[in-house]
Amino acid sequence: MKQVSRLLMQMDFIKEIDKLKYIQRKTKLFNSERHENDAEHSWHLAMMVMVLSEYANAPVDMLKVLKMVLLHDIVEIDAGDTFLYDTTKNHSNTDEELIAAARIFGLLPDDMKNDFMAIWIEFENGETNEAKFAKAIDRLEPILQNISNRGGTWIEYNVPFETVYAKIDKIKDGSSFLWDHVDELIQEFRKA
Amino acid sequence: MKQVSRLLMQMDFIKEIDKLKYIQRKTKLFNSERHENDAEHSWHLAMMVMVLSEYANAPVDMLKVLKMVLLHDIVEIDAGDTFLYDTTKNHSNTDEELIAAARIFGLLPDDMKNDFMAIWIEFENGETNEAKFAKAIDRLEPILQNISNRGGTWIEYNVPFETVYAKIDKIKDGSSFLWDHVDELIQEFRKA
Repeated sequence: MKQVSRLLMQMDFIKEIDKLKYIQRKTKLFNSERHENDAEHSWHLAMMVMVLSEYANAPVDMLKVLKMVLLHDIVEIDAGDTFLYDTTKNHSNTDEELIAAARIFGLLPDDMKNDFMAIWIEFENGETNEAKFAKAIDRLEPILQNISNRGGTWIEYNVPFETVYAKIDKIKDGSSFLWDHVDELIQEFRKA
Repeated sequence: MKQVSRLLMQMDFIKEIDKLKYIQRKTKLFNSERHENDAEHSWHLAMMVMVLSEYANAPVDMLKVLKMVLLHDIVEIDAGDTFLYDTTKNHSNTDEELIAAARIFGLLPDDMKNDFMAIWIEFENGETNEAKFAKAIDRLEPILQNISNRGGTWIEYNVPFETVYAKIDKIKDGSSFLWDHVDELIQEFRKA
């Protein structure tokens, strides 16, 4: 492929993913009434990876984890945000998300498409050390936001704490140290 | 330092940088009337680094470039966004930005504070291959946005094209290939 037509494909992808800035999450910013969007969320996760990777249960390739958190939500441009505590929806690798990944990563040249697809699938499968840690960080951010917002989505959507715990338990697989801290934060929050 | 007090400092930093989501840039999203904020902007640059690093003039350490673009605007939480074409303001390493960096990165444990500070200063100085490429990408994003917005801030603030060229010329230092493409885009835009 000529280098210029390769670049044009990459530029199309760069324009397309601007739409991630319009995908609203249920969670709100810290101490705030303003909903977070997926692009801001992805940036915040990347910063958290830079700051917290020393607590991963197993050593992780930070570059890989950063790539995972930066692109993990891009499928939501087509598939929309799935609320973690929505009981009516499947939460991983839905057909809708696979079609979205194929379309959006498919804007890129094949080598890059395959690379991004592989990173996203590795994240979704959650089996490698990098994916476990990336998923722990993805769970951690909204917990911190909810606690700073007097319960946030837990209160707003009446989520029982058993359900919360069942969903965020995965943090343990990525970092038992961060899990202990989160568990303590939630216990303090419930007492207050 | 005990590990828990180290974590509490890191958590304070993670909460503090949430404020980057409120810092509005002059530039608007692609084909849009909505201003971009610094957190979204930083995420988009990180994705552009993942997609375009093959065009850097010299090989770059992608992890280093990602860290640079992810944290380069954090000082604006205190110092505010400086519009690229604002002729009344100094654009690099102002006292205000240095004080902001010391305060915000200073929330972190010393080793991490020093590390983040060094990355930010390397970016600001723009001398290493990584800093040159990161700065090229930082210049590139608003050009693409302005072209998609019929001139965007160039028209809104009556910026002469000689001034535009003087400011974006730096893209060449990071990637002469991307510069050639940008030059062509701007020439096409001016003809249209």
